[in-house]
Amino acid sequence: VLGYDGTDFAGYQIQARGRTVQGELEQALARIARAPIRPQCAGRTDAGVHATGQVVAFDLAWRHEPAELQRALNALLPPDMLISDLQPAVAGFSPRFDAVSRTYHYRLLNRPWPDLFQRRYAYHVRQPLDLAAMNEAAQALRGWHDFASFGKPPQGDNTVRQVMVARWSAGENGLLTFEVTANAFLYHMARIMVGTLVQIGWGHRSPTAIPELLAARNLRCAAPPAPAHGLCLVKVTYPADQIEGSAPK
Amino acid sequence: VLGYDGTDFAGYQIQARGRTVQGELEQALARIARAPIRPQCAGRTDAGVHATGQVVAFDLAWRHEPAELQRALNALLPPDMLISDLQPAVAGFSPRFDAVSRTYHYRLLNRPWPDLFQRRYAYHVRQPLDLAAMNEAAQALRGWHDFASFGKPPQGDNTVRQVMVARWSAGENGLLTFEVTANAFLYHMARIMVGTLVQIGWGHRSPTAIPELLAARNLRCAAPPAPAHGLCLVKVTYPADQIEGSAPK
Repeated sequence: VLGYDGTDFAGYQIQARGRTVQGELEQALARIARAPIRPQCAGRTDAGVHATGQVVAFDLAWRHEPAELQRALNALLPPDMLISDLQPAVAGFSPRFDAVSRTYHYRLLNRPWPDLFQRRYAYHVRQPLDLAAMNEAAQALRGWHDFASFGKPPQGDNTVRQVMVARWSAGENGLLTFEVTANAFLYHMARIMVGTLVQIGWGHRSPTAIPELLAARNLRCAAPPAPAHGLCLVKVTYPADQIEGSAPK
Repeated sequence: VLGYDGTDFAGYQIQARGRTVQGELEQALARIARAPIRPQCAGRTDAGVHATGQVVAFDLAWRHEPAELQRALNALLPPDMLISDLQPAVAGFSPRFDAVSRTYHYRLLNRPWPDLFQRRYAYHVRQPLDLAAMNEAAQALRGWHDFASFGKPPQGDNTVRQVMVARWSAGENGLLTFEVTANAFLYHMARIMVGTLVQIGWGHRSPTAIPELLAARNLRCAAPPAPAHGLCLVKVTYPADQIEGSAPK
């Protein structure tokens, strides 16, 4: 289970240019294995997106306790990455294809003035939001739907997903958190949901607009994605006989 | 009332090299006044130290509402600085010499694993700390004392200060906060207090060691200063007829 502060990363996936989570992880793994190792992950988060519960898997010959490997990797990883749990997985385990659900949190600060210390981790929205309208709309996202209006599939053309949880809660000092759990997400799906729900919270769209938006099956009908820095991958779950990804305790 | 995230600043005070809070503030003021303006502050914080309640004062001819100047300055300031309140002051007001008290908070994360999102704002201490011993020791810091063991004076040789508040409180997930209020602080005084109290919390010094440390009047007897990034200047108070510095509401 891997956490990272997405601020200074060009996303999870390794690429020719730019610092990536996968790139840093591969460097640490290579120093331990003295050979290149390619980790697999549960979901390739975009540039700027954070994680506390990303799940990665890799093949490595290790004779000692898993906790020692965790310590060794954390000592090699940069300060904006942290392995919070490390366990042996069953043979052939795939963090992506074996995942049963993913949970993201989107943090939004709804008040006139910004917060200096939250500016990397919460989207600042000055104009007041109607939380009840946003939650009414969020409810319509739950269930099995074709989410073609909310993102493109990473491969193939199946845009049907199951959303199990989609709700806003209010914290202190104007902090609003959107929790969304689905079996899997389309590209930008969580952020397009948030962008659309914010427009509903401003009264620019009706809270009853979600069913027609789903029916439209057209990306242009939804709002643009909300900024990446509010989003955090917090949990990925697996069948009990494999491994359970979890946020740090 | 000025806040800043100290992470990317070489301290408050302007200097030949390095990005400073004062330097950024002077740039914003010069763009509004079309002339150089030198602000005065309540306390020159070190590199890496944060503020939510720094108080600055400057002379500027302004025909409109103070709130409009605040908005204009905030629009010109970088995202890691924020003016949270702006009021006219009495003629000759000095944020430094008129201040009655300063309050700092020091945030410390006492648990085995770090927090990715607090790493710029809290000092991570893995080894368990005895909070009761630290609070017993903190109590001995209160009152009028010669604090020569805890820092050098910014000018002259008077090292007597009055500490009104010095206490630790425990928050969630291992977060400990030291709140300290004094009429004025010596250089590094808050951080040397924290460094010393942490040694007491580890059992490396006795909780009853503070009175002899004060009596020694020798900087070498105390612990090194705790890291800058845990410290935040949260409040400066003034006589009621001048101006009251306060943290953002």
